[in-house]
Amino acid sequence: MTPPAKHYILTITCPDTTGIVAAVAGFLSSHELFITESEHFGDVATGRFFMRTVFQERPGMPSIAALQAAFAPFAERFGMEWHIHDATRRPRLLLLVSKFDHCLNDLLYRYRTGTLPVEIPGVVSNHPDLQRVVEWHGIPYHHLPVTRDTRAEQEGRILEMVDRLHIDLVVLARYMQVLSPQMCAALSWRCINIHHSFLPSFKGAKPYHQAHARGVKIIGSTAHYVTTDLDEGPIIEQAVERVDHTHTPDELVALGRDIESVVLARAVRYHIEHRVLPNGNKTVVFRR
Amino acid sequence: MTPPAKHYILTITCPDTTGIVAAVAGFLSSHELFITESEHFGDVATGRFFMRTVFQERPGMPSIAALQAAFAPFAERFGMEWHIHDATRRPRLLLLVSKFDHCLNDLLYRYRTGTLPVEIPGVVSNHPDLQRVVEWHGIPYHHLPVTRDTRAEQEGRILEMVDRLHIDLVVLARYMQVLSPQMCAALSWRCINIHHSFLPSFKGAKPYHQAHARGVKIIGSTAHYVTTDLDEGPIIEQAVERVDHTHTPDELVALGRDIESVVLARAVRYHIEHRVLPNGNKTVVFRR
Amino acid sequence: MTPPAKHYILTITCPDTTGIVAAVAGFLSSHELFITESEHFGDVATGRFFMRTVFQERPGMPSIAALQAAFAPFAERFGMEWHIHDATRRPRLLLLVSKFDHCLNDLLYRYRTGTLPVEIPGVVSNHPDLQRVVEWHGIPYHHLPVTRDTRAEQEGRILEMVDRLHIDLVVLARYMQVLSPQMCAALSWRCINIHHSFLPSFKGAKPYHQAHARGVKIIGSTAHYVTTDLDEGPIIEQAVERVDHTHTPDELVALGRDIESVVLARAVRYHIEHRVLPNGNKTVVFRR
Amino acid sequence: MTPPAKHYILTITCPDTTGIVAAVAGFLSSHELFITESEHFGDVATGRFFMRTVFQERPGMPSIAALQAAFAPFAERFGMEWHIHDATRRPRLLLLVSKFDHCLNDLLYRYRTGTLPVEIPGVVSNHPDLQRVVEWHGIPYHHLPVTRDTRAEQEGRILEMVDRLHIDLVVLARYMQVLSPQMCAALSWRCINIHHSFLPSFKGAKPYHQAHARGVKIIGSTAHYVTTDLDEGPIIEQAVERVDHTHTPDELVALGRDIESVVLARAVRYHIEHRVLPNGNKTVVFRR
Repeated sequence: MTPPAKHYILTITCPDTTGIVAAVAGFLSSHELFITESEHFGDVATGRFFMRTVFQERPGMPSIAALQAAFAPFAERFGMEWHIHDATRRPRLLLLVSKFDHCLNDLLYRYRTGTLPVEIPGVVSNHPDLQRVVEWHGIPYHHLPVTRDTRAEQEGRILEMVDRLHIDLVVLARYMQVLSPQMCAALSWRCINIHHSFLPSFKGAKPYHQAHARGVKIIGSTAHYVTTDLDEGPIIEQAVERVDHTHTPDELVALGRDIESVVLARAVRYHIEHRVLPNGNKTVVFRR
Repeated sequence: MTPPAKHYILTITCPDTTGIVAAVAGFLSSHELFITESEHFGDVATGRFFMRTVFQERPGMPSIAALQAAFAPFAERFGMEWHIHDATRRPRLLLLVSKFDHCLNDLLYRYRTGTLPVEIPGVVSNHPDLQRVVEWHGIPYHHLPVTRDTRAEQEGRILEMVDRLHIDLVVLARYMQVLSPQMCAALSWRCINIHHSFLPSFKGAKPYHQAHARGVKIIGSTAHYVTTDLDEGPIIEQAVERVDHTHTPDELVALGRDIESVVLARAVRYHIEHRVLPNGNKTVVFRR
Repeated sequence: MTPPAKHYILTITCPDTTGIVAAVAGFLSSHELFITESEHFGDVATGRFFMRTVFQERPGMPSIAALQAAFAPFAERFGMEWHIHDATRRPRLLLLVSKFDHCLNDLLYRYRTGTLPVEIPGVVSNHPDLQRVVEWHGIPYHHLPVTRDTRAEQEGRILEMVDRLHIDLVVLARYMQVLSPQMCAALSWRCINIHHSFLPSFKGAKPYHQAHARGVKIIGSTAHYVTTDLDEGPIIEQAVERVDHTHTPDELVALGRDIESVVLARAVRYHIEHRVLPNGNKTVVFRR
Repeated sequence: MTPPAKHYILTITCPDTTGIVAAVAGFLSSHELFITESEHFGDVATGRFFMRTVFQERPGMPSIAALQAAFAPFAERFGMEWHIHDATRRPRLLLLVSKFDHCLNDLLYRYRTGTLPVEIPGVVSNHPDLQRVVEWHGIPYHHLPVTRDTRAEQEGRILEMVDRLHIDLVVLARYMQVLSPQMCAALSWRCINIHHSFLPSFKGAKPYHQAHARGVKIIGSTAHYVTTDLDEGPIIEQAVERVDHTHTPDELVALGRDIESVVLARAVRYHIEHRVLPNGNKTVVFRR
């Protein structure tokens, strides 16, 4: 059995105009590269164009460096922000957790079974509780307690790990700490948080208790990029579940765990498959 | 073919304690009345008890007045707010509309086909646009324009109709007007509004545009009782639909119409079937 | 205010190979035509390629006939089945109904309000019941009763109407009659039926009663193209709703009406927006 | 902090008639027992009555044995099948698995975190693959290979474990083996299987491949009691997920894993909370 062909993902953002798709598809075609997936979107409101194209490696094709060089003039012409990603390279995740482990367990399961094709070179927590399960997966566990006074130092150590371990994405898997503006800025568009409400409803603390107090009939969960504006970052994915008057706050919390796990896992997958493109404070998500 | 048996609905709210279900069921049983449905709920947070019991008419049963008299001592003992509703009596609805007709069309269709077993003795609008479709259904159409200056008078005419036509429920089927506090108070717990967002997100005007600006991945709709606190009334029902970056505000509006129609129709049905019991600023909904 | 620009929709099916997207996008670009939407899909299992591209009219652009002539060599080269549709032309629907009117009401409402931008030059029914509501919309109503003996003749009259009225799509909006193989063949890929079950479950008659007998916890509805193989035609759209043990067959029927209406309306919209491409006994649906 | 009060669950099935609820509620009330939850259902089609009532322990209350003795005459009078379950006793589960571990992982996680309050005295598999993860949870792993020739013996060993370990519920967490009629009979109404399709669609092997071949737009999963009639057992719970033409069979399989895990976990929870009552080949599920 031959291994499946290697794929590359070309992502593009630029001002919308005539001829972009033709230029991109023409470029790939001129190198006899076969497109397996392609999606684009022109935002009428902002005049921005977004594109994600997956193409297949072929024997004898130019190197990626050579392709990049050849593509540069097109990119220049259209004012593109663009990148060619190696789809077979496993992105490197740093997970930040606190004491709640449902999102962690879900991500570790998908990691362990290969459903989520990533490397996880470390898990950081401000509590020691989850060490055993993390280390059972062969992943180093970094217990970095944090207080108001030590936040800057603790975050510095995390950012140092992000650099040293070549982390592509930081995942706040119910980390329960508010990051400093410096940290948010340093991790811009590469740090995903799961908020346990259907944003923009119920920002801040204890959203399930807020939901209970308001008497909503549906609760939800939101995965978003972290920004300095708490719970206001660009939304990647949301999901909901029906509830009723019989649910206590604790039962909402329990029910919410399943939603949070699924929503965060999806958001991480969209990100690592380069399906998410920034669009101001919003996202374009070429989801399946 | 014998007609289906007549049913009655007993609704009860009172402080929770031991023996309420036994008293109610025992009372009905002592009159040889057959229970076809019964649901109750004790709110641990508030100590309130809520019950809805449906029982079937039988030949030779006491009159409802006699039953009420016989039940009064039980009600007294437990401090009940209670009511026996004739399930075969068609509740009388007054619909308030503006120019958008999707909720109106949906309700009229259900009315016309008997799916929603109600009387609709009138439709009020501040615009003339929907007269033809309303009158085609044989329903009087009352065009009552309103301005800031004439609000009090216009609302007075509506309230007069509510009285004169023995209206049980006022339905704001995209009425687009904010009711005065007096009007809200006069229609307390008998006026349902459909808000075109997933409350408490996106209160106020143009919620779909707000949703678009925020980049949410799911939109929704909320039916609630009208209170003086705009868009803060007790929620009866909500539903949602998935959207993505490609939806323009106008497309969200179009998509939302289907959700709004369904949510409002459900809320009205729950109300007229006496499935909704007030619980502070929340509702107990014994939904199916 | 200038009117919105006119759009055209190019649909393509052909064997998958390198360079198709480049050829199509290059062709449109060479005529300075702006692409507003484009989606394609390569079916690995069958090696077929499917594409739908929307482009915008521009002042001074070539006529569609000229574009077609210019595109023909590309189409030839790739072995394309292709078509350029005028997106502003309202497709012409013939609705076939029986006695149930929920799908009819829903489609007529969308027609009347412009949500479904179609012409409906006629409604055919084997019963007289729905004449009034149809004619109120200004649409001719054709009462064509049918028996086993008169089927051929009745279908002949319908097919004659399809021709004479230049019908693009026949919609069986709960028509309740099985079409003859000849009729199915004559309307291949241009006749949509709504089946009141989640196919392939509960084919044939009384699916809600079957669902009740089986004790399923979710019911659904399926819109599909009509083929000679009853209830086996290519599926366009499905939706579901949760139910439980308390629902009687009649209540399932009532609940199902809302699902059927929504699913059929979606399928019709996908079809008239040329979002559905045949793929053997399946469909590619470039849905939003 | 005082521990939460102990609860008991009274389940009843009997012919429907007047006075059952009164008798049950009156009985509990006469012992000053506080009802925290109660649901009942009369099946009009079969004339059977189903009830689940949760009541709270109180200091000085009679023993359960004494209550049972006191209740027996009522039960006799109404012809009840009935049981009083100790809600604080952890039911004992035996999990049967093969090589797929997503349902196993999900159940083990809920077990380990206390979300699913059960004992799991053993896991049986016909393959050795999942030994490590099971034993990490401190649960004995029994590798019992099976062939056509050894089925009777292998099943005998499992049934012996069911007896010896006082198993309340056997869970086929993607066990992939068809049980013999003897085994099915021995485990009647206490063996739950997860079938990876939306039954009754796609019975038998490779349902996701069947779903792909049929081109459905929604896939699902079904938890049901195991009977001799393969994939025809009483359905407890179902859930679905939307898919489209782009999903390969393998992707459907991957997507289905999340649905299967959730559906099986819910079914197990309903069962152990005694929310599921048999109703012929169907179930009454007093779900939340």
